[in-house]
Formats: sequence, structure tokens, C-alpha cells
Amino acid sequence: MYSDPTSVTHITIIGAGPIGAGWAAHFLARGYDVNAYIHDPKERESFDAILDTAWISLTALGLAKGATLDRLSVTSDLSFAIQDTGFIQESAPERIELKQALYKELGEIVPKDVVIASSTSGLTMSDIQQNCATPERCVIGHPFNPPYLLPLVEIVGGKKTSPDVVAWAGQFYKAAGKSPLIMKKEIPGFVATRLQEALWREALHMVANGEATPADIDNALMNGPAPRMAVQGQCMAFHVACGEGGMATNLDQFGPALKLPWTRLIAPDLTKELRDRMVDGCNAIAGTETFENMAAKRDAQIVAVLRAIRDTN
Amino acid sequence: MYSDPTSVTHITIIGAGPIGAGWAAHFLARGYDVNAYIHDPKERESFDAILDTAWISLTALGLAKGATLDRLSVTSDLSFAIQDTGFIQESAPERIELKQALYKELGEIVPKDVVIASSTSGLTMSDIQQNCATPERCVIGHPFNPPYLLPLVEIVGGKKTSPDVVAWAGQFYKAAGKSPLIMKKEIPGFVATRLQEALWREALHMVANGEATPADIDNALMNGPAPRMAVQGQCMAFHVACGEGGMATNLDQFGPALKLPWTRLIAPDLTKELRDRMVDGCNAIAGTETFENMAAKRDAQIVAVLRAIRDTN
Repeated sequence: MYSDPTSVTHITIIGAGPIGAGWAAHFLARGYDVNAYIHDPKERESFDAILDTAWISLTALGLAKGATLDRLSVTSDLSFAIQDTGFIQESAPERIELKQALYKELGEIVPKDVVIASSTSGLTMSDIQQNCATPERCVIGHPFNPPYLLPLVEIVGGKKTSPDVVAWAGQFYKAAGKSPLIMKKEIPGFVATRLQEALWREALHMVANGEATPADIDNALMNGPAPRMAVQGQCMAFHVACGEGGMATNLDQFGPALKLPWTRLIAPDLTKELRDRMVDGCNAIAGTETFENMAAKRDAQIVAVLRAIRDTN
Repeated sequence: MYSDPTSVTHITIIGAGPIGAGWAAHFLARGYDVNAYIHDPKERESFDAILDTAWISLTALGLAKGATLDRLSVTSDLSFAIQDTGFIQESAPERIELKQALYKELGEIVPKDVVIASSTSGLTMSDIQQNCATPERCVIGHPFNPPYLLPLVEIVGGKKTSPDVVAWAGQFYKAAGKSPLIMKKEIPGFVATRLQEALWREALHMVANGEATPADIDNALMNGPAPRMAVQGQCMAFHVACGEGGMATNLDQFGPALKLPWTRLIAPDLTKELRDRMVDGCNAIAGTETFENMAAKRDAQIVAVLRAIRDTN
């Protein structure tokens, strides 16, 4: 029923803010035809400015064959914006009444084999799709700011979303040059924002208590965990840092440290089940790669990242 | 009383584990003479292996003039290891009785104008220095793993540490090519580890609840916030993402979102005082730089980081 995710050539963008414009830039850079719906023609100027800014970076990263800004058309006529579309990325304002009304309309005018994805960061698809006559093809595809640069797209359906559409979205975003993360459950903040938000709240506590300044927080992140986290997530960072013993050593040896007051966030109980999920998960990521190779690759990539930052300073 | 921090030429390393060996590699790469104290000669093999591994990355980052592994001497005689030393970096095992006994001995045999810094991540200097006859020159200098690559060193004194020594350590580490962070208070986990730990505990909660797998966590970090966080800390990331309005817009507009269940960590009350500290702190970092320039620099650096990672994959 749904088309081959790799056969999509026409994209519709709804919303002219930084997220909508960022998406438009990304899809244009990947060689798609893009129809952008702008609610108020006055937004055109800032939309174009974001596009021009994004294009500098996207060009530096490498454009797809045939990619050009000339393949963009902008309109304030929604029915025109959806013509011939193969996929809709909606980034309208974050107001539930507005989104519900929009999905009601889209549900009627967009062919029902076209997937509609929302960039929402604060709403759930179960709520958004409530008044939509074709809710099964509506899904969340949540980017990370700036959306034209960071590869992550978190994908999750609402109660009425078809599992086929969730899978389709994963394949589509991957074909479109993104790094999809298909979520297991509809949870507030998705995965990446929850992690960032925990860190952010701890930072606010420290500033509130006079333990650190904003400059300290940023210094700590940029010169501490971040360059490593860019090349190795926190799970694999601990896995590889513990040598041959990996995550099992980390949890069995340092598990008691989870009870220490090293943050205001109380850790979960380190049950056998949680331990095994962490260990098995890291072993699955590592595959047959040796500890030595993983550590060497980590170092080579951190060196490359540090040099890249230094050379652009 | 203490020497000029930039005049130090001889370093003593105590401890042959990954942290001690990592420090030895770093100081050698910066052109210092290094005396390494290894408690058990059997540790020599793994010490050398870490040094060799680290040297590959340090060479790629650029060695200081005259830097060579030949300027290392290794001994299991503590009194020999401290001869002619200008600075001691202690990375002994994390057991309080062991550290207290070590600092008692060092307090007696090391000239009292030599600063002694501990790499401890889990103990406080107030506890470590308890039996030391010269506690005023003892301070924590906590690196981030791997210590030969990541620039951060968190510096904090104990109750009996002289403020002059804390300041001296900041100047010394900077001269030695590190990025010092002088802490305002002695708090468990310092700054960077607290931030990382908050993130880590949220990750464990998600895995425990079946909301994400370790692969999801790492995917979310590496393709989401981390490449940006490596070039812009979380405070400035929000400041710049909000455009001209900066952190004030972020807190005034999205402050209520701190009450949302976007992580298990309860946020502090967003008092006027906290708001102003955040806003003033970000404005101080930004200085006279325009929003456009900061956003453009962020993008250029993220592009460079993404290309660096891609090219080393």
C-alpha cells in the first residue's frame, strides 16, 4: 500500500520556522524536489535566510547528485503544496488545537498512501491524530536542532499509527540521509531530549547552588565528555573504557556508585535484568570487534574531532 | 613560595593504571621530563602498552618541541621518583586508607613548595589530606578518560588546601596544555561527571523500563546532541538556538517545560536569581560576539566534526 521508501522524489514541508526551513534545506541537499507550505507569506524572508545559512554547511558536507535550491517551490496554498507529494514533514507551531485541525484537513486532502510525519518535540501523536480520518499513516519524525546538520530522527507512532508506517518512516529517513531511531514507547521527550534534559536539569541545580557557572558547565562538557560522546555513545564509552570486561565489569564493579550522590537523579535499582540488558546490548553493538580495535578507533576519531574543532577555531 | 607554574620541567607520576599512564603520556607529549612511580614492577608491561597507544594519538595531535618517550624514567622507589620534581600527579588506587597513608608519606618527603595533585574521582581532598603534615599544597586535579586526549582537568581543594595552590594548579595545567576548571565547592562527582552521571542514570531508567536499548541510547547521543555539544556546551547551545533573545528567551519561554516529565530528574525552581545567573553567564561567554557569528561558527565546527568522524569511519 505504501510506496517503496527509496522511490520518494517529492517532499512537502509544512511550517516556515527554523525546523521547517531546516528540513527543507536537508531534503533539497539530498536531491529531492521540495514544496514548502508557508502559512504567512511574511515568513518567507526568514525562511530563505535559514535556507541560505543551511546551504553553506550542507554544501561543505557534500550535496547529492542533482541537488539544487532551484528544486524548491514555496506556496501558501496547502492543496498546491501537497501535489504529487511522496512524503509530508510537518513542523507547524506546537499548539495541540492547531495540529489537530491541521491533521484533520491533511487526513482528508492527502492521498492516504502518503506518510505524514510531525517534527513535534512536546506533543504525542496519539493526541495529534485524534481528529484525523486517516491516522494510521501519521507518525512522529522528531529531528534534533539544527535539523539540517544533526542526523538523528526519532520515530514513534501514536495509538492509531500502523506499525508498517513506523517501519516505513525508518527506511525512508535512512534513505534520505538521516539516522533514524525507532522508539519502543511513546514517552515524553523521546530518547535524546530526555538524556539532554537530565543533564540540563543537573546543570541548573549546580548553577542554582553556586557550584558552577554557565561557563563552567560548558567548559566541562566541551573539554570533557562531549568530544568522546560524539564518536562513542555513553554505553559503549563505559564498555570500552573497562577493557576486556566491558559493561559487565562496569556494572558489577561500579554499580554501587549508582547510590552515590553524584547527581540529583536517583538511579534505578541495578537488577539482574537491567544488568543483562546493558551487557547484552553493548555486546550486540560491539559484535566481533575486539576491545583493542574499538579503543584505537575511539582514539583516532577523538583526535580527528579535536583537530577539526581546533582548525575551525 | 610556590614556583612559577610555567617554569616546571620535571613531573612525578604516581600510579601505573590507565589514568597514571595516561598522565605520563600527556606530560611527555608536552615536553616534560617524567618520573613514573610504579608500585609493582609487574605493572610495567601494561603501563608501557598504554603509553604506546597514547603516543599514537598524541603524535597525531602534535608533540611539543623536544617531546620524546626517552624523557621518561620508571622506578619503584618513591624517594627516587620525587627527585628534582616540580609537580606530582597522583593516580593511586581509589582507597581512602591507601591515599591517606600515601599523602602522609609524601607530606614528609616532598619539598613543601611542590604541589601534589590527586586524580581521584570518588574521594574528597578534605579526606585524603587528613594525615598529611603539609596539606595546604595538596589539591585535586581530576582528568577525564582518556586523560591523554580529553583536555578537561577539574581542580578543587580540600578544607586545608591553600587558595594559592588551587590558583597555581589552574595556571600550571593550562601551561601544560589542559583546560582547567576551578571548582567553587567540593561536591561529589565534580562538574563533568555529575552532568554525565545524570544523563547515564536517565539512560539506565529508560533501559530498565523498556523504553530504549543501549544501541538506541548511543545512537541518540552520537547523532543528536553530542556533535553539537563538542563545539558548544549546553548553555551556549540553548543561548544561540534562541536567536537574539538568547538564554533569556529560552528560560522565559520554555521555563514551564522544566515541570514536564521529560526526565526523571526534578528541575530546580526557576527563581529570578537562577534565571539571571544563567542569562548573565551566557552573555559573559558571548562577549561582543553577534548571534549570527556564533551560529555560523557552530555550524562550521559541527560540519568539521561530522566530516572528521565520517573520514575516520
